[in-house]
Amino acid sequence: MTRRKDLLDLESLDKGEIEYLLETAESFKEILARPVKKVPILRGRSVATLFFEPSTRTRTSFEHAAKIMSADTYSLAGSTSSLVKGESLKDTMLTLDAMGIDAFVIRHSYSGAAVLASRYVPDKPVINAGDGTHEHPTQGLLDALTIREEKGRIEGLTVAIVGDIAHSRVARSNIWCLTKLGATVRLVGPDTLLPAEADKLPVEVYTNLKEGLAGVDVVNILRIQLERQDSAFVPSIREYARLFGVSKEKLAVAKPDVTVLHPGPMNRGIEIASSLADDPEVSVITDQVTNGVAVRMATLFWLMGGAAS
Amino acid sequence: MTRRKDLLDLESLDKGEIEYLLETAESFKEILARPVKKVPILRGRSVATLFFEPSTRTRTSFEHAAKIMSADTYSLAGSTSSLVKGESLKDTMLTLDAMGIDAFVIRHSYSGAAVLASRYVPDKPVINAGDGTHEHPTQGLLDALTIREEKGRIEGLTVAIVGDIAHSRVARSNIWCLTKLGATVRLVGPDTLLPAEADKLPVEVYTNLKEGLAGVDVVNILRIQLERQDSAFVPSIREYARLFGVSKEKLAVAKPDVTVLHPGPMNRGIEIASSLADDPEVSVITDQVTNGVAVRMATLFWLMGGAAS
Amino acid sequence: MTRRKDLLDLESLDKGEIEYLLETAESFKEILARPVKKVPILRGRSVATLFFEPSTRTRTSFEHAAKIMSADTYSLAGSTSSLVKGESLKDTMLTLDAMGIDAFVIRHSYSGAAVLASRYVPDKPVINAGDGTHEHPTQGLLDALTIREEKGRIEGLTVAIVGDIAHSRVARSNIWCLTKLGATVRLVGPDTLLPAEADKLPVEVYTNLKEGLAGVDVVNILRIQLERQDSAFVPSIREYARLFGVSKEKLAVAKPDVTVLHPGPMNRGIEIASSLADDPEVSVITDQVTNGVAVRMATLFWLMGGAAS
Repeated sequence: MTRRKDLLDLESLDKGEIEYLLETAESFKEILARPVKKVPILRGRSVATLFFEPSTRTRTSFEHAAKIMSADTYSLAGSTSSLVKGESLKDTMLTLDAMGIDAFVIRHSYSGAAVLASRYVPDKPVINAGDGTHEHPTQGLLDALTIREEKGRIEGLTVAIVGDIAHSRVARSNIWCLTKLGATVRLVGPDTLLPAEADKLPVEVYTNLKEGLAGVDVVNILRIQLERQDSAFVPSIREYARLFGVSKEKLAVAKPDVTVLHPGPMNRGIEIASSLADDPEVSVITDQVTNGVAVRMATLFWLMGGAAS
Repeated sequence: MTRRKDLLDLESLDKGEIEYLLETAESFKEILARPVKKVPILRGRSVATLFFEPSTRTRTSFEHAAKIMSADTYSLAGSTSSLVKGESLKDTMLTLDAMGIDAFVIRHSYSGAAVLASRYVPDKPVINAGDGTHEHPTQGLLDALTIREEKGRIEGLTVAIVGDIAHSRVARSNIWCLTKLGATVRLVGPDTLLPAEADKLPVEVYTNLKEGLAGVDVVNILRIQLERQDSAFVPSIREYARLFGVSKEKLAVAKPDVTVLHPGPMNRGIEIASSLADDPEVSVITDQVTNGVAVRMATLFWLMGGAAS
Repeated sequence: MTRRKDLLDLESLDKGEIEYLLETAESFKEILARPVKKVPILRGRSVATLFFEPSTRTRTSFEHAAKIMSADTYSLAGSTSSLVKGESLKDTMLTLDAMGIDAFVIRHSYSGAAVLASRYVPDKPVINAGDGTHEHPTQGLLDALTIREEKGRIEGLTVAIVGDIAHSRVARSNIWCLTKLGATVRLVGPDTLLPAEADKLPVEVYTNLKEGLAGVDVVNILRIQLERQDSAFVPSIREYARLFGVSKEKLAVAKPDVTVLHPGPMNRGIEIASSLADDPEVSVITDQVTNGVAVRMATLFWLMGGAAS
């Protein structure tokens, strides 16, 4: 597979590239199962994580992926970093580039930040770990890998994404990834949380949970941003939980072997019933976390290669 | 020595287990004395430190112990971690477990947090680095190791613990450890800072410093929590320092070769006179710090073993 | 070159020591150009960075230098560290020393903090990464290395340092380093931002930018502290930018091959025109960053040596 410079989104990847990444990730899972999880692929290489929005979960996953491959990691958090306070994104990238950092993982509240960051380091890989409401490509890949492991395929499946689609980069990366691999994607949520451009996306739209879940193979339940409850989007969290919170009972209309995903962190009892999250027959939420490390290893391997010549 | 899953307290350890840990720690001290402090025992293994209460000192000690043994470390601090804000302790543990983290070191303001955390990761070690007012087992072990090094034995010694016993996990771990090894333990402090359950503990209680120090071999001086001075426990810091602050003069009633410990960080001039803290004839405070690294290496080694088969 | 214990300033280094550090740094640049940037020089050794003032840029540069040489690094930040809140600098140093940390990099807002820190660890190296308005020696060295690379020499050059000299440790380290190596140094800034002791320094003083830049080989433009704009030092940032902000036009009076440095982070459009900062014919700002890593490797190598016997 031809190496790209960056992983900024899944919209611009073709089916072959996505499948290559999923297969590479799958082969790396063997390393994750070993007692000694250390391979020398990226020894002497360095990865900086720049998280302008906090997410210990995603940052740790990337750093673990990098360290398993023997890279050194540097963590620059937005809130504590003088780079951020006193310096533009441009100068932060130019500085880390000049220090000899080999690759960059960036999360930012501004849609397009990763694209911008990539332009400042024309010779080095940038991985988008979530930019505003745009994309979170490694989340899309790990969701696809988890579904494929569980169902044996993605082609022909129907996947419902439930929740605040309008503000969700996870939803966008899922839509592109799953439709390119041949799934049918449904967006399910209240009118106010559906994206304005929904009719331009390769999706079906449902504003009723029961209808949206009817006959689906997979449900991907998004995290509801509790901090948004004072806005006009949702009347109340209690109202949201009643109408769109997913439980085992509400899943009765789905396929009998329905699989449930959630990108985490979960609000148990709001968008997902706690018993559903913990049900090993239905929930693959911890598999998603494991696959996240494998997908990030595959991404770093694809973009950084081994110890270059 | 049979491997346990966790180190959550010293109350449930037997004398043989404590002695095994002290002897293992002592043998690791040889590594700490080397110019090149690196052994491959935990290569390819990973340790996460979850500090929901800040303590750079203890966290760095654990991370140093892990890195000397070639483990990778991940630091998740309560105040900066989205895992904590948006997620229950349960989901934090399940997530890190699914990522493939091999062991967990947890500090939490809630007594019992480490026990709870351990239940969520049934196959992986959890080390309690201090939970509320319950226990801080590696502190108890390092204190015991330091006393044994200094005195040649623990059996038969009289050890006075001075200060805010009621709120001290250090005191509790010391009591269990030292009495199991055959020492007599005295608790010394004002009535308001003695534990309600003192009569159920294997200790002698003193509310007068001079009486409490009379004839003792060892004094372990606890840190007074300055943020508690507005509460009803202590009339004033000045009052506390006058009545229970330990100086060389006040130690005149103890054995001539009395040894002084303090878990740090010290409030010099309050619970301990600055000149006493720095007196190399009496104070073993820096030895405690060195032994802390050795005890944490021994604990990681016991619980994680070498590269498992 | 005889090994010193610390690098606290450049004022007390002699010309031979400075040249040794520059030559060692130059030889380490070959490692920075490799795809696999990892040498075993400091394997099993540990370096703690203690930043009581935040600076992700400088801290990351030191940690990268240490990790390339295979050292383990520990980062203790002032704002998040309980060591700092509850403990004196003395006890912090004694504690880290007792843990077995091998070297210390310290940044502090108090001029003289690094000297003080050094006294508490008589057997271990301390590197001053900036103390108040005193010195920032590795910055002085990396500026000298960058100038020497660009011009082929330092002897006989005229270097103008422009900006808030009075509060600048960068300026002080530059003055000592460059004059010891035979350059003429000019300080250029408004009266209120020139140091009171300027007449005791081996420098020429200019309060007019045009006169100060006339005929110079090199301009080192300091960062203006925006948080100081409410003080009496500068009438307004706009006024400062108009009178002392450096642009290509204002540089017309300098030598035709004039070279521009800036220690970063830059306030583009204030002390330096953005187009000037990005002009590869004139600006060597990213070379400074690369040389920063090399100079810090050389410093660690000088003070810590290889794996000691």
